[in-house]
Amino acid sequence: MFDTRIRVGWRASVGLTSDVLVYLTVPLAFPLVLAVYYGEAVLPFLAAIAVSLALGGGFRYLKDPDEELGPREAFLAVALIWLLVAAVGAVPFVVAGVGTIAHPVNALFESMSGLTTTGATVLTDFSIHSQSILMWRQLIQWLGGLGILILATAVLSELGVGGAQLMESESQSRDVNKLTSRISETARLIWGLYVGITALAVVVFLLLGFAVDPRMDLYNAVAHAFTSVATAGFSPEPLSAGAFHPVIQWAIVPFMIAGSTSFVLLYFFINGEPGRLLRNEEFHFYLGGITVFAALVALVLWLSGAVESGGEAVIRHAVFNVTSIVTTTGYASTDFDAWAPAAKYLLFVAMFMGGMVGSTTCSVKSLRWLVLLKSFRRDLFTSVHPDAVRPVRVSGEPVDEETIRDIYVFVLLSIALFVVLATVIAADAARAGVAVSEFEAMGAAASTFLNIGPAFGDAGPYGTYASFPMSTRGVMIVLMWIGRIEIIPVLVLFTKAFWTS
Amino acid sequence: MFDTRIRVGWRASVGLTSDVLVYLTVPLAFPLVLAVYYGEAVLPFLAAIAVSLALGGGFRYLKDPDEELGPREAFLAVALIWLLVAAVGAVPFVVAGVGTIAHPVNALFESMSGLTTTGATVLTDFSIHSQSILMWRQLIQWLGGLGILILATAVLSELGVGGAQLMESESQSRDVNKLTSRISETARLIWGLYVGITALAVVVFLLLGFAVDPRMDLYNAVAHAFTSVATAGFSPEPLSAGAFHPVIQWAIVPFMIAGSTSFVLLYFFINGEPGRLLRNEEFHFYLGGITVFAALVALVLWLSGAVESGGEAVIRHAVFNVTSIVTTTGYASTDFDAWAPAAKYLLFVAMFMGGMVGSTTCSVKSLRWLVLLKSFRRDLFTSVHPDAVRPVRVSGEPVDEETIRDIYVFVLLSIALFVVLATVIAADAARAGVAVSEFEAMGAAASTFLNIGPAFGDAGPYGTYASFPMSTRGVMIVLMWIGRIEIIPVLVLFTKAFWTS
Ligand SMILES: [K+]
Ligand SMILES: [K+]
Repeated sequence: MFDTRIRVGWRASVGLTSDVLVYLTVPLAFPLVLAVYYGEAVLPFLAAIAVSLALGGGFRYLKDPDEELGPREAFLAVALIWLLVAAVGAVPFVVAGVGTIAHPVNALFESMSGLTTTGATVLTDFSIHSQSILMWRQLIQWLGGLGILILATAVLSELGVGGAQLMESESQSRDVNKLTSRISETARLIWGLYVGITALAVVVFLLLGFAVDPRMDLYNAVAHAFTSVATAGFSPEPLSAGAFHPVIQWAIVPFMIAGSTSFVLLYFFINGEPGRLLRNEEFHFYLGGITVFAALVALVLWLSGAVESGGEAVIRHAVFNVTSIVTTTGYASTDFDAWAPAAKYLLFVAMFMGGMVGSTTCSVKSLRWLVLLKSFRRDLFTSVHPDAVRPVRVSGEPVDEETIRDIYVFVLLSIALFVVLATVIAADAARAGVAVSEFEAMGAAASTFLNIGPAFGDAGPYGTYASFPMSTRGVMIVLMWIGRIEIIPVLVLFTKAFWTS
Repeated sequence: MFDTRIRVGWRASVGLTSDVLVYLTVPLAFPLVLAVYYGEAVLPFLAAIAVSLALGGGFRYLKDPDEELGPREAFLAVALIWLLVAAVGAVPFVVAGVGTIAHPVNALFESMSGLTTTGATVLTDFSIHSQSILMWRQLIQWLGGLGILILATAVLSELGVGGAQLMESESQSRDVNKLTSRISETARLIWGLYVGITALAVVVFLLLGFAVDPRMDLYNAVAHAFTSVATAGFSPEPLSAGAFHPVIQWAIVPFMIAGSTSFVLLYFFINGEPGRLLRNEEFHFYLGGITVFAALVALVLWLSGAVESGGEAVIRHAVFNVTSIVTTTGYASTDFDAWAPAAKYLLFVAMFMGGMVGSTTCSVKSLRWLVLLKSFRRDLFTSVHPDAVRPVRVSGEPVDEETIRDIYVFVLLSIALFVVLATVIAADAARAGVAVSEFEAMGAAASTFLNIGPAFGDAGPYGTYASFPMSTRGVMIVLMWIGRIEIIPVLVLFTKAFWTS
């Protein structure tokens, strides 16, 4: 039926991967400089730079400048880039050789968790790691956030993955043959905004640190700015955001929300067209979702009397942790694993929501849920009036039926992969004799596959994924990777049609 | 936009409801005769017959023979019939005034649970109830199974609810204007088959009872035949199927599978066209699903060493309880709530599968999952080849895109309502100070909404739903009702377009 020769232009994919690996040496210089400054080991970063250059340089030989980057080549490049950057990102942890992350599987887990902006950690003792290693752990998240922004706004929207073509973009033309130029053009626009918001976060955190909490020094301000804007989740503090003064916790909230807002709409917002953001239906739905979940969690905390005392603390912990989960950041202001079952269940459900399409957020994303809800209403109408034709509209624009179907497929595939991962976690725990409850297995599956970070039980916000069997973590690495790049680019690699036709 | 007068022909819906309520007096005579035979109270059944006749007779006055039973009228009739028959079914429990089910909410819970073939119980002490009351509890399940067979094969398939039009039917014509004649025609065909399989089950159970287990007397043979063929779940024995000899447990398995197999295909099977069943792709997928889940559960039981001893026991408990859950029957051969978390999690996931379309089974049903899996594969193909056209095929026949969309909507609506119910259960438990874990809330939500029956914790196979707050049970009654009649017939009642346009 199909021509069986390999027809995908893999040399084009490898060429793009090669460029990224060579550029990766620039951010690797940051922890290197830090290591010199603090008098810590420099070898971990020199080794990573060497590996990155070797891989990137080697790939350059395979590159073929005449091959075009079409849809298939883009899928392959995306899958390769996230996998290889995570591998290079793990090198410093292995070479440093300190603690749990000295083991290659754990190092790759931590690196993939950072790059995919998941923020699930296998660290057990934070104090034994050098400042430069902990900062590299923060920085790789920020790079992952930037990568996903470019992927979401320039690549996936062009390819229509999971209905991503619905995203309001600054250019209305979709032309998959101009993918390479779209990537550099979008990167230029997004880059400044991303750096700008991060810099603003550093300044705000630092000023508040001077005012109320000396633990928020320049190091922590930079570390937490990286995490907040990338909606990623790592903190060099074992208590996460709970280590800081309540005022600083409140100040982190708007930056998590900024990171999970469409950067295209943020771009318009600061360039004289604020209405495009403020009147956007997904934006309303998204903020409404955070409000509803936070109100429900606050209600349950109040009913169950679990939070220490005072209305401010109840509201702050509800708002902070719900925002952290819905934006898919994964910070915690308190050990929410100790909350009443109803509150933990609500956080679990909130994991599936996600922020706006075209942001650094992970998970299913608000736009998809909004389209589904509108499609439900429309379909109830057509059940009664089978001959009526009534398009689904978002922000006034009709959504075509094929896009709606893409969204249904995406959402159900997400749920299906979550169920598969939870099954693996539960069964592997039974095999290894590790105590993992049904809900803990589901929580850890959702939190890693949807790139949230913390879950419940041992994987709770103040816990560690080191408690799971090594084999479970191996599967989690794969599913963080699949989840972050929106599933389809990986799954298509396993179809025969991808390679041969 | 719409004409605001009521335009739905509700008098036609009420007319059909009236017929059903009058006919309901015939099965009510069965426990009445039994009460006379055992010398037990007859008032509970006389009262129910009186209520049924009064309601049915009263509704007859509202009937308008000129109004046609179209799609909307059918939805309304279905919703009304299931609600009112459940209400009449609760009357004997209230009038008998014994135990937990003397309370009206509990009586309605037990009756709705029976009629919807859910099998979730609020009984705490089985020994205090009369034989006739316990048999009424069994019989209402069997009536519910018959009702759903007629609904599935004659009504929902015509109206195309959730892709039910895909079902292989004995007439290929779909004509919603002939709904009334379709209903009586299908009822005639199905009725004999349903009675025949039930009678066969009575004979088999009774013979095995003579051979190996005196507890399986005529009363229990009839009681368990009703439950098995209706895939419903109640047992007059507190230990459910676990009360009987292993051989009897094995003998129950094929009857649960028969009850959850398409009755249209069973009809062909015994009428000289066995190939239509044996070559049916949904049938293969369905049996494959049971096999995979049973193998996984057996593996986990074996790994965790939780089941007493002996390979036969492990395999029997895995096969029996997985079959019970996937067929949506809800029997238990052992207290599976005491199993390892991985095994319980697998049972929880299996709840969402369901048997074949056109059977007495509940839940999502195998055909829908099969179509979704095939649609996933197709969509991965079109991600790589955006211009390719490739229909999804089941048993060789192409499935049209609108049907696929209906199925997506149905499956996601099911998941959404499950999440809502689990949220209510968890939050209401927090309010009332009742200890319900996250997984127990999810299990009870899935088990009631998907009409399975038992779940985990207090709602476990040897437990009772009486442990939940009364308000939780009130919500469960509504969701058993919504789930059983395939969601859409109830949800459309809440749209303005249903009533006015
Ligand atoms: K995260
Ligand atoms: K059942």
